[in-house]
Amino acid sequence: MQSVETYREAFVKYLENQSPVKEPKNLYEPIEYILNLGGKRLRPVLTLMASDMFGGEYQKALPAAMAVEVFHNFSLVHDDIMDDAPLRRGKKTVHEKWDINTGILSGDAMLINAYQFLEAYEGESLTQLFALFSKTAIEVCEGQQYDVDFENRTDVTLPEYLKMIEFKTSVLVAAALKMGAIVAGASVANQDLIYEFGRNLGLAFQLQDDYLDAFGDPKTFGKQVGGDIIENKKTFLYLKALELGAGEDTKTLLELYQGNTKDSATKVALVKEIFERSGSKAATEDEVENYTNRAFESLLKIDAAEEAKQVFKAFAAQLMNRES
Amino acid sequence: MQSVETYREAFVKYLENQSPVKEPKNLYEPIEYILNLGGKRLRPVLTLMASDMFGGEYQKALPAAMAVEVFHNFSLVHDDIMDDAPLRRGKKTVHEKWDINTGILSGDAMLINAYQFLEAYEGESLTQLFALFSKTAIEVCEGQQYDVDFENRTDVTLPEYLKMIEFKTSVLVAAALKMGAIVAGASVANQDLIYEFGRNLGLAFQLQDDYLDAFGDPKTFGKQVGGDIIENKKTFLYLKALELGAGEDTKTLLELYQGNTKDSATKVALVKEIFERSGSKAATEDEVENYTNRAFESLLKIDAAEEAKQVFKAFAAQLMNRES
Repeated sequence: MQSVETYREAFVKYLENQSPVKEPKNLYEPIEYILNLGGKRLRPVLTLMASDMFGGEYQKALPAAMAVEVFHNFSLVHDDIMDDAPLRRGKKTVHEKWDINTGILSGDAMLINAYQFLEAYEGESLTQLFALFSKTAIEVCEGQQYDVDFENRTDVTLPEYLKMIEFKTSVLVAAALKMGAIVAGASVANQDLIYEFGRNLGLAFQLQDDYLDAFGDPKTFGKQVGGDIIENKKTFLYLKALELGAGEDTKTLLELYQGNTKDSATKVALVKEIFERSGSKAATEDEVENYTNRAFESLLKIDAAEEAKQVFKAFAAQLMNRES
Repeated sequence: MQSVETYREAFVKYLENQSPVKEPKNLYEPIEYILNLGGKRLRPVLTLMASDMFGGEYQKALPAAMAVEVFHNFSLVHDDIMDDAPLRRGKKTVHEKWDINTGILSGDAMLINAYQFLEAYEGESLTQLFALFSKTAIEVCEGQQYDVDFENRTDVTLPEYLKMIEFKTSVLVAAALKMGAIVAGASVANQDLIYEFGRNLGLAFQLQDDYLDAFGDPKTFGKQVGGDIIENKKTFLYLKALELGAGEDTKTLLELYQGNTKDSATKVALVKEIFERSGSKAATEDEVENYTNRAFESLLKIDAAEEAKQVFKAFAAQLMNRES
């Protein structure tokens, strides 16, 4: 195994060596723009790591890693249109820098282009990669649709919420790992274990994101603390508080999430009090730990060198400590 | 070979037997809606016909035909958003019936779903179908981008225009045929010939569409005659008229396509006069004939039963006579 930094550098180099902007420029310039906004390249790094762990040359997994990263960026471009988001990684979103039509069409081309990277494989590997990639891509769309639907619903349940975040974020992390395993020719048992590792780690990460949005340290949390509360987002903390909360708190919470009667700071403070008092804060911490543990249990069962598993464990621990 | 109607019925039956609407409904209902708006099912019928001509059981080509039809409908959904079109086949477009975000996301899911139909194939067939499908899909996106770009350009050349319509419409017709040939295990030479047949027939059809928009019989032409002229669309007729036209006509044509000084009927009449006087009308007729002849030449060279080629020839003739 190599260091995480080595995989990341290999991926970024591969990305930068892709063919320069082609004609029509208005289609390909936005694609180059979004792919070069940076980011941690978490998913493609996981593809390379998984391939290496299962005895493949990680370089052979570069096209699969690229498929995952291009797909991820496609979903960002289209989601940003749907969410009317002005910024992405501190820079203008594609539809803001160009226009909505450019965002739609460039996104479409990225989705197709992601598939094209799978043309590097053949035979049984191609068949498996192709089916996994499409299944995952459809789930990501379904997750996005559930997210949109939930905005207008008041009866969202916790299992529904967990399914939404699983589809919207975890399955792509899981698939990124499994694709690396497929390229390396890992056994089906190992493919499934690394997938479960990724799925649970993704869920832990997303629930922690919900948690940190309310209780994170403003100095280290990348986004505005309390942002979800201000936007009335039905996160795990909120849904769990409704489930656990006593009568008066539940009533207050529902009211706070409906009107705009309070100023933001007061609202955030009141909601956080209810999250604590109801036991939702502690339950969310537990849930994050549960999913993290499940991820580590899957990792433990994988038939691979101990050293390789340690690299994954350190990577996951660092990810959950938000130091990466 | 079967009758065209047999292929169409087999396809429509296959389409109707697809799994019913799944959850989330807001993602899948728009997909079912657009796929069931009808239409001639031209492309999937061509896939089945090509497969049959090259000795395959045409039923085996049904998933490939479905991939083509779902992709085509994906492109309609996204194009209708970009063109702000209210109607499709006389019914509300997806983004009108639902909203733009639904159109974007359902379209994305359709593009992925189109790929999923290719999972019915394996080995060398899958590799070839997969690469051809992606190449074609990217070209369709490029064609749409050129079309958008041309609206704001005054220096579009005829070769650029021909490339645009080739990418936007012909390559999918050509790929539909070639996919049928691949499924049937046709030789590469035959695959290429049927592709060329489709590409040239598609170009002939699109140029004829330009022609009929100005000179068609209002009774049989499906759309408003003169619509392209009213919308200042830079069609083959227009670009050829600028290329051929004498000084005064060119000046008048450019003026008519800039302002809105004339009422529509007067404008259409004046522009049609220039199309005739400049020789553009006759040149467009010639071009339609040229591309049709090239299509038939490719068909002639195909190594297949004469009877099968006759079915294709009759189909193409009927298509160009706009009786289908």
